[in-house]
Amino acid sequence: MADFAEVRVGLAQINPTVGALRANADKILDFYNQAASRGCDVVAFPELSITGYPPEDLVLKDGFVAENQQVLAGLAKKTSQTIAVIGFVEAGKTDNELHNAAAVCQNGKLLGVYRKHLLPNYDVFDERRYFTPGAENPLFVIKGAQVGVTICEDIWSRKGPVAVQAALGAVLNLNINGSPFHAGKIGERREMLGTRAREGECVVAYVNQVGGQDELVFDGGSMVLAADGTVVASAAQFVEELLICDLRLPKSKSAPAPQQTRGEIAEPLSENAQIFSALVLGTRDYVFKNGFTDVVLGLSGGIDSALVAVIATQALGSEHVHGVAMPSRYSSAGSISDAKLLANNLGIDLRTISIEPAFSAYLGALQGSFAGRKPDLTEENLQSRVRGTTLMALSNKFNWMVLTTGNKSEIAVGYFTLYGDSVGGYAVIKDLFKLKVYEICEFINRQNGRELIPQTILTKPPSAELRPDQRDDQSLPAYEVLDPILALYVEQDKTAREIIAQGFDATLVKRITRLVDVNEYKRRQGVPGVRITTKAFGKDRRLPITNKYSG
Amino acid sequence: MADFAEVRVGLAQINPTVGALRANADKILDFYNQAASRGCDVVAFPELSITGYPPEDLVLKDGFVAENQQVLAGLAKKTSQTIAVIGFVEAGKTDNELHNAAAVCQNGKLLGVYRKHLLPNYDVFDERRYFTPGAENPLFVIKGAQVGVTICEDIWSRKGPVAVQAALGAVLNLNINGSPFHAGKIGERREMLGTRAREGECVVAYVNQVGGQDELVFDGGSMVLAADGTVVASAAQFVEELLICDLRLPKSKSAPAPQQTRGEIAEPLSENAQIFSALVLGTRDYVFKNGFTDVVLGLSGGIDSALVAVIATQALGSEHVHGVAMPSRYSSAGSISDAKLLANNLGIDLRTISIEPAFSAYLGALQGSFAGRKPDLTEENLQSRVRGTTLMALSNKFNWMVLTTGNKSEIAVGYFTLYGDSVGGYAVIKDLFKLKVYEICEFINRQNGRELIPQTILTKPPSAELRPDQRDDQSLPAYEVLDPILALYVEQDKTAREIIAQGFDATLVKRITRLVDVNEYKRRQGVPGVRITTKAFGKDRRLPITNKYSG
Repeated sequence: MADFAEVRVGLAQINPTVGALRANADKILDFYNQAASRGCDVVAFPELSITGYPPEDLVLKDGFVAENQQVLAGLAKKTSQTIAVIGFVEAGKTDNELHNAAAVCQNGKLLGVYRKHLLPNYDVFDERRYFTPGAENPLFVIKGAQVGVTICEDIWSRKGPVAVQAALGAVLNLNINGSPFHAGKIGERREMLGTRAREGECVVAYVNQVGGQDELVFDGGSMVLAADGTVVASAAQFVEELLICDLRLPKSKSAPAPQQTRGEIAEPLSENAQIFSALVLGTRDYVFKNGFTDVVLGLSGGIDSALVAVIATQALGSEHVHGVAMPSRYSSAGSISDAKLLANNLGIDLRTISIEPAFSAYLGALQGSFAGRKPDLTEENLQSRVRGTTLMALSNKFNWMVLTTGNKSEIAVGYFTLYGDSVGGYAVIKDLFKLKVYEICEFINRQNGRELIPQTILTKPPSAELRPDQRDDQSLPAYEVLDPILALYVEQDKTAREIIAQGFDATLVKRITRLVDVNEYKRRQGVPGVRITTKAFGKDRRLPITNKYSG
Repeated sequence: MADFAEVRVGLAQINPTVGALRANADKILDFYNQAASRGCDVVAFPELSITGYPPEDLVLKDGFVAENQQVLAGLAKKTSQTIAVIGFVEAGKTDNELHNAAAVCQNGKLLGVYRKHLLPNYDVFDERRYFTPGAENPLFVIKGAQVGVTICEDIWSRKGPVAVQAALGAVLNLNINGSPFHAGKIGERREMLGTRAREGECVVAYVNQVGGQDELVFDGGSMVLAADGTVVASAAQFVEELLICDLRLPKSKSAPAPQQTRGEIAEPLSENAQIFSALVLGTRDYVFKNGFTDVVLGLSGGIDSALVAVIATQALGSEHVHGVAMPSRYSSAGSISDAKLLANNLGIDLRTISIEPAFSAYLGALQGSFAGRKPDLTEENLQSRVRGTTLMALSNKFNWMVLTTGNKSEIAVGYFTLYGDSVGGYAVIKDLFKLKVYEICEFINRQNGRELIPQTILTKPPSAELRPDQRDDQSLPAYEVLDPILALYVEQDKTAREIIAQGFDATLVKRITRLVDVNEYKRRQGVPGVRITTKAFGKDRRLPITNKYSG
């Protein structure tokens, strides 16, 4: 008898939809059958792949959990020789006890269940709200080799279940994930997985969900790492894929055979390519999974709406993207011509609807109330709200989802009009600071080998065009100054005092951080958009609106 | 030496503001000095009273935690013979370790710290996101009697720290709270506290924060329960108060002296009176703590806006409430006259601004795009959005906060216009089902002994008046049918199938529950409002927008 096992592992990097239990099961079965027909000994599916991740409060419905367990039982019955590892929600032994679990199924039977030990309850994660931690470390045998199963967070801890299972004899750890993307994360993951493989002297096979779910984008990027920590197979990011890898595994940990492995290695993406792909996938899935086919957005001739238009066109196809130019008395001629040039470059339609008639009608209706008052921000906001209402009317009439175009810098300091330019279903670039918006636009033009986004849009000074000769830098510092302060305050939780201590101008820092604080109420009414950083506005950052702290 | 101690306990039911560390400390010191001058041996302040509860992600800022500890140290230095028990955030020994803690201070020194054991992470609570559980049970001695300290959730568990401390000899447990109101909670609390007192054979002194914080209202209702579970002192709900109670406590648990107690007993409020008080306090604190003095709202002549106007008037005073009637071609004569009558009854101002000019201007501007299309929901939404924009213009010009008037039934099924009647800063009655709105209005008229809310408003059939002869019951079932289905689906997490099994019409249940699901995106953009039930739309209910579950 050979002292090693030849094991073919499949990692099914699928794109489930939250709540679509039957459709997700169909997709799991489809990938299972592919893996079986390609001779896999085992195929692993992502964390909670039956429910989609994260199911949030759906799991508080007993009926939902029961149905997800029925769906799992149905899938288990359909398994043959190829072992399936499937993420699901398991109802525990006592009332209100749930586990984030992985079922191991073969030949129509459930061989066993692993229950996640480490439940993240930080950043966007609320797993302690739903689940009870597991404590057991069952091992499974594949062709004589011992195999452990873990779930997502479990593998991030040095002394966690991967180490325990390795000590118990596991030579392969199947780690199933619902691990959301942020810029730079794939490198962190690869390094951590390599460390864990070396520490445990075991192969690590990491499978991750792909697809968009509200604010989160899951990037896939599944991979297999040999016991020396090298990547021996990897899937592409942002697409569904069945990654297959042939492993030669020792049957006894004490006398390891040489680990020979074979699998495909995907071409890595640059960080900007990853960000662009995340924006495209997040937008496509939000639009399609919510039953829409088309989107509409205002094209101001500025850089933010230009980037969103490019992303939407890539995500949905040019015939499904509708641009609207909404000029006012303060719009420059360049704004309209730039919007036209962009729409032409992208092959999307563009209509022009003047906001002047409605704006004038409001001013007339409010004349009595406003008598004796000077024009101020009110009149600027009114114009923005006429634009928002116009887009929503087109949305209602044609069932187009409105895409909103605000960036993270604006959203941070409240430099937008609530119910105006903030209206919509999806805020595509809400987690990109303004400087990053420029960077991604330049990346796009380089990738396309032409000025897909016209150079005039990239070089004009940013303006809201809500009063004569308005420019962003009349209200805000240059983005080169603003963005770093915002990154420290918003993403790194520094206090104003600590930021000043780093050498930034005290008056400016106090003004900016106060703007961030007092605009929490606006953000709370914001629409979801793709999370790109480690701290997006949304579930990542849960600050009170009523908040008198100014430290 | 007597074998019992005469102890005067003070419970400082204060209204702190989240983040206002120095102002909260000033308030604590003010109540401390009152308690000391009234001869208290000990005075207890609410949970996290230095930061205000809940501070949410503010505690992720190291600088914030450090400053809250400096403020605590400053307070401790100012203590004299009267012991102070003060809730604060304690930085733990390792990085990122924080405790929800209570400091016990006397004669300028910190005697000790209790760290909360049980951290709620359900409903609106996220304490596992922030805090590490404590495990110790220090007892403190007051005049020879042993006293335990616990924090909020700690006392809800039968085998929790209250039982442990009682077994260790505590004859009094000081339980400090940030316990938010919901209808019916004070009865549950009283019963639970009585049970805990009897089980531990100890006096329980419960102090709770008062005031509004975004969606939460803390109702105070502090109380002292003797070891036999009877309430021997109680504070009023919804107002700041220093409750004082004289206790005769045994110095040894084994030989208890008769527990003689003396304190004031507040008049209990009926459940509807509690709800009305919560709505008024929540609104007042949201408006004032966010720096506003005045509010504006649309008065449609309907019951929802009437109730909100009454609450606002009670909260802020009639001179700070501004009504706007915004008639259209579809408004009935009764709507305007009812709005006028209501404004007159309340003594608030009322202006009339027609939405016709702006509505017509939009229709003209959109004529080209809408050519060949019939009028539909688009035109209804447009009218509502003109009203929303008009209110926001008044808000911008005069710095009045807009109050929005939607009820829980409408918000559940999406029977409102996003960026239309939903605009505003605070959604006062968002957690009242429509039938409850009627009930509270009738309560108000009974309390006032007159038709403060005109009878015609109470009896007319509900209508949005956005098309000729429109009535809610053309789109929705009667509220007598709708509200119970919504309560089961939204508040009790039943599936459609389970609700049908209870005998409701299957087609109707499927339609209603689907409406609830597909309108999650609208609610996500909603404004905060007072939480009244055990499950309000907000932090209580975290459902995905992208959600294909239909069980």
